[in-house]
Amino acid sequence: MSVPITNPTPAFSIRRASHISLTVADLEVSLAFYTEVIGLVVSATGDGVAHLRGVEESAHHSLTLVQTKGEPSCRRLGFRVESDADLDRAFGNFSHLGHRPEFVDLPHQGRTLHVSDSVGSPLEFCATMPVQQRLHDQFQLQKGAAALRYDHVQLLAPDVAKASAFYTALGFRISDYFVDLEEDEEPLGIFMYRKNNPHDIVFLTRPGPVLHHFAYVVADSTFLFRALDTAGALGFSGNLERGPARHGEGHALYVYFRDPDDHRVEILTPPIQMGDAEDVPMRWHRGNRHSWEFPAPKSWLYEASKFEGVEIQGKGAAAKLRNLEDFLASRPLKMPE
Amino acid sequence: MSVPITNPTPAFSIRRASHISLTVADLEVSLAFYTEVIGLVVSATGDGVAHLRGVEESAHHSLTLVQTKGEPSCRRLGFRVESDADLDRAFGNFSHLGHRPEFVDLPHQGRTLHVSDSVGSPLEFCATMPVQQRLHDQFQLQKGAAALRYDHVQLLAPDVAKASAFYTALGFRISDYFVDLEEDEEPLGIFMYRKNNPHDIVFLTRPGPVLHHFAYVVADSTFLFRALDTAGALGFSGNLERGPARHGEGHALYVYFRDPDDHRVEILTPPIQMGDAEDVPMRWHRGNRHSWEFPAPKSWLYEASKFEGVEIQGKGAAAKLRNLEDFLASRPLKMPE
Amino acid sequence: MSVPITNPTPAFSIRRASHISLTVADLEVSLAFYTEVIGLVVSATGDGVAHLRGVEESAHHSLTLVQTKGEPSCRRLGFRVESDADLDRAFGNFSHLGHRPEFVDLPHQGRTLHVSDSVGSPLEFCATMPVQQRLHDQFQLQKGAAALRYDHVQLLAPDVAKASAFYTALGFRISDYFVDLEEDEEPLGIFMYRKNNPHDIVFLTRPGPVLHHFAYVVADSTFLFRALDTAGALGFSGNLERGPARHGEGHALYVYFRDPDDHRVEILTPPIQMGDAEDVPMRWHRGNRHSWEFPAPKSWLYEASKFEGVEIQGKGAAAKLRNLEDFLASRPLKMPE
Amino acid sequence: MSVPITNPTPAFSIRRASHISLTVADLEVSLAFYTEVIGLVVSATGDGVAHLRGVEESAHHSLTLVQTKGEPSCRRLGFRVESDADLDRAFGNFSHLGHRPEFVDLPHQGRTLHVSDSVGSPLEFCATMPVQQRLHDQFQLQKGAAALRYDHVQLLAPDVAKASAFYTALGFRISDYFVDLEEDEEPLGIFMYRKNNPHDIVFLTRPGPVLHHFAYVVADSTFLFRALDTAGALGFSGNLERGPARHGEGHALYVYFRDPDDHRVEILTPPIQMGDAEDVPMRWHRGNRHSWEFPAPKSWLYEASKFEGVEIQGKGAAAKLRNLEDFLASRPLKMPE
Repeated sequence: MSVPITNPTPAFSIRRASHISLTVADLEVSLAFYTEVIGLVVSATGDGVAHLRGVEESAHHSLTLVQTKGEPSCRRLGFRVESDADLDRAFGNFSHLGHRPEFVDLPHQGRTLHVSDSVGSPLEFCATMPVQQRLHDQFQLQKGAAALRYDHVQLLAPDVAKASAFYTALGFRISDYFVDLEEDEEPLGIFMYRKNNPHDIVFLTRPGPVLHHFAYVVADSTFLFRALDTAGALGFSGNLERGPARHGEGHALYVYFRDPDDHRVEILTPPIQMGDAEDVPMRWHRGNRHSWEFPAPKSWLYEASKFEGVEIQGKGAAAKLRNLEDFLASRPLKMPE
Repeated sequence: MSVPITNPTPAFSIRRASHISLTVADLEVSLAFYTEVIGLVVSATGDGVAHLRGVEESAHHSLTLVQTKGEPSCRRLGFRVESDADLDRAFGNFSHLGHRPEFVDLPHQGRTLHVSDSVGSPLEFCATMPVQQRLHDQFQLQKGAAALRYDHVQLLAPDVAKASAFYTALGFRISDYFVDLEEDEEPLGIFMYRKNNPHDIVFLTRPGPVLHHFAYVVADSTFLFRALDTAGALGFSGNLERGPARHGEGHALYVYFRDPDDHRVEILTPPIQMGDAEDVPMRWHRGNRHSWEFPAPKSWLYEASKFEGVEIQGKGAAAKLRNLEDFLASRPLKMPE
Repeated sequence: MSVPITNPTPAFSIRRASHISLTVADLEVSLAFYTEVIGLVVSATGDGVAHLRGVEESAHHSLTLVQTKGEPSCRRLGFRVESDADLDRAFGNFSHLGHRPEFVDLPHQGRTLHVSDSVGSPLEFCATMPVQQRLHDQFQLQKGAAALRYDHVQLLAPDVAKASAFYTALGFRISDYFVDLEEDEEPLGIFMYRKNNPHDIVFLTRPGPVLHHFAYVVADSTFLFRALDTAGALGFSGNLERGPARHGEGHALYVYFRDPDDHRVEILTPPIQMGDAEDVPMRWHRGNRHSWEFPAPKSWLYEASKFEGVEIQGKGAAAKLRNLEDFLASRPLKMPE
Repeated sequence: MSVPITNPTPAFSIRRASHISLTVADLEVSLAFYTEVIGLVVSATGDGVAHLRGVEESAHHSLTLVQTKGEPSCRRLGFRVESDADLDRAFGNFSHLGHRPEFVDLPHQGRTLHVSDSVGSPLEFCATMPVQQRLHDQFQLQKGAAALRYDHVQLLAPDVAKASAFYTALGFRISDYFVDLEEDEEPLGIFMYRKNNPHDIVFLTRPGPVLHHFAYVVADSTFLFRALDTAGALGFSGNLERGPARHGEGHALYVYFRDPDDHRVEILTPPIQMGDAEDVPMRWHRGNRHSWEFPAPKSWLYEASKFEGVEIQGKGAAAKLRNLEDFLASRPLKMPE
């Protein structure tokens, strides 16, 4: 079994993963978490909706929080395309493929196209947003992680090769993938990118589609601790799920938080640059990873945010990664005698 | 129940916790760990013994490793006194109290006094060591954590109030202590210091006396990651036991490693300064700590290094701290449905 | 007066500034500087030529050093194009414009096209290099700045608007530019990019074309100090020219070194991400910059590396930026009386 | 010529340099500088006086600012003694020596003894201050440098050996001193300490006594940049005088600011630990220092704060250190031709 091949001449040009919208039970609590701990700044708020951005972002928003009385969930994943003309090409392409795209009007962003990917994940594409002042040099405003910019999103789906093929057809390249050596090289995780770092969208094998996490880049490792220390001081300690640690593939340092509605948000240090013509997908398995990180706790492996109104498929799919609970249990206690 | 009171006019003047000697099964492997991951430098080596120091230390050694064919253990905990005259005063004081002190000759250190504390922990005191070049400005030599200097030692003992009274009689002050609110304020942990930071020697309630860990200060949080990343790259990932995290009392950031013989060594960022006349012991309990660190794994709570030839007492004493295993098990998994 | 307009449909697709070749008087000394202080790793060496790369780079080389008996100079600036087909399109485009491009064979890189820009700077384009192992997770190998990757190059030229028009015609976008408010908005500096950060190539107004500096990204601010401290310990203190400081436009922290042949190399922290459709050029002048950096010393403003065999034009062009010497002289000394 | 010898049995026990009081022209502006840029917190304010402390300090204040209509100056340098009994011993000792000590009542601190040192610098000693909450774990309150604690003070005096003898008689030890190799080993600078790091009080050779600077410790090098970046964002850029750089003796990283009244304040990273019996004074001269820092600008060498009402002596004393202005002028400009 294998990973899908990137289409070198996609029908339209996607620039990057750029934004996400979530529903939340208590907007005020969520705003406290995202502004104080993650360090996002508010671009606009009102009527039960808040738009936030990273301190470096000139884009109007990368995170939209919508108050809900229902079950908190993820509404939609946003991507930027190069130009408005790409939106029209995208409409034509998706229509041709039977994906039933739809243009919608949304506040604080340019013309926007809605469509679902091949496994049902709700996407949106736009070319522009109103320009905001970049605030990365307003150091006196920085709080918590002082998150710089939205980086990527990770989803769970029962068949990651199939789910990823939708994206490679749109020109996404694969940076890394995990295989199960015991199961005919079945890919268990696929990392794909358009901008020049290893990830805009990632799929891991589990029932889905569901949102596993979205991620913001921070300036350096001291901001991971700053986020954690602020969380500790302000009563958000229980929101830490995993880390600080370094990703097994030698990449960025990270922390995973669960927000007040259990949506998972990662903060990570600046990723490596990639994307030259000769950069081919890196194949990982248990045997060629060397990291000091502990295995993920079960919650990280299995818990996720539903997409609003999207049914979960493939309930049999299992995580084939070690979990922290089993790892700890496997070590016999050696009491001094 | 309560903590012991510091003697304001001790019989002799102790400067600080300063060194430790351990026996190890394979000196070469231990040297690789301590020089590459912890970043100590070798002051002298030969005949199955190695003396190491932190990169900032002018003292000849703070860690002595001795190859053994027996069970690896801790030989002795070292403290510095102000002057040679203090050694004579110490001899008189310990003799008077019936502790049977003994002067010994040891390579690479001045006149040295051996004695055991009231619970049987083997101690040694000296006033001087041969001066070595401080290497903290030889940045091209730095490896791993580039540990700067020895900071403190932590022991386990069944009755920490009793064990600590030996040290408060010698002028140690208490910076912090933990109590069990449900058990008549029984102290579960006592932090004591002579130099001007919160800890030279710490006792926690468990069977003992045994060595829980010894600790080196590193320059800043980036050296915690540097130690971990080097451990990952050189095959020492499995030696990580706990962290990186911040101590619950708002103090330093830390990582705990187990060395190749399972001796536990902590690296921590520079502690706060204390010791003014008005600094009174801080009383902690579960209700007034706010940190983002996870509970310690059982291995951290229960595993320890024996002191060579010293019997373990109080086997009924139990850790009253939450452990990571129970903490993880207490959180029900919420699978998306 | 104004800055040139980006061609939205360039004849071929340039990916990024990617490499540079310099001639040096003593290859061994230069290698010591670039490996110990800047932290580059050697990909290949022999016959008076060394190829080096940043620790994160999978590209074979980003810096080529060639021993010379003549005057040390810069041979050529390298750029990556998206694919080999882009090289053919580039050949056609440059031929059509009368720039006389030439395909050449070079070791350790794919098919390569040589051409000079409109002011005479010698360029080369290629699509691929042999893949090397990325070493950013081999922390035990890191030295000095542990430079991650080549980022950009800065040139001096008498008329920056004219010099930049060559690049905007090739699809380079302008991130920032400086104007002289007193001289009819004459642009004094223009920052252009293809990859998604603010700079691949920069022009400042002075006699030229000459190479002002090339730049590598480091992981975070601690690596600036690590480079400086290593320089101090190994006898390269005199190579520091400017910094550490933060660029006036709120961007990265930096240090400028002069290498053993006085070629200037910058190390800087990870730049911001940019390039969305709505990102328009930022216009800077003395009035809207707020930074704590001191003015540059005269050497930084006026000294530069010649391009081998390229004549310098516009000797009357002057730097209209304050220099450190005048800044210091402008502050009257206030002795306590 | 030589440095004075430490009295091993001083008449009373000084703990550390602990506080300072300054007069300022505009208390509001000074408070903005010290709280936003240096990151001190206000313990008490009112009636034209503000008391501030570092975020880690349990002491009530380490900096007192007093609004004045006269010339801003330094009122007094504070030291902590071990206990109130030491104050009585100090009174007896200073009376015996004819220094005319005086007990005074001051708000927010225990019984306080005023005296001048042998060159006229106004000192005060106290044993206690009201305990304040340490705020180093209230990360959400941190601003600018988030200065942790007061560390040392540096004075100028025409004869540093003579000035230092007052302090070595009180038990201060010498960590480092500079000599002029060409002038019979005349000491040009003497660093003295009581607490266990290299400096509580430092004297440099120049007319005096005047206050050169006082210093606060910050957590790590990122807080130097944070202070500078905040200064840049809030309009305090012009207050930077020197740095960031590393002290020539391989010690801490530092930045020197001039406050709104031109009082000089240093922030520095945590110093090394010292004070074991064998730690002898380090002798420095131009030949055995290796650092990458640039020479100090003339303002740093010659400008200082007067002590209120204290006459300046020895106006002929000159700084024998290179200055930045001469250093820059000594380098001929090499324009590319």
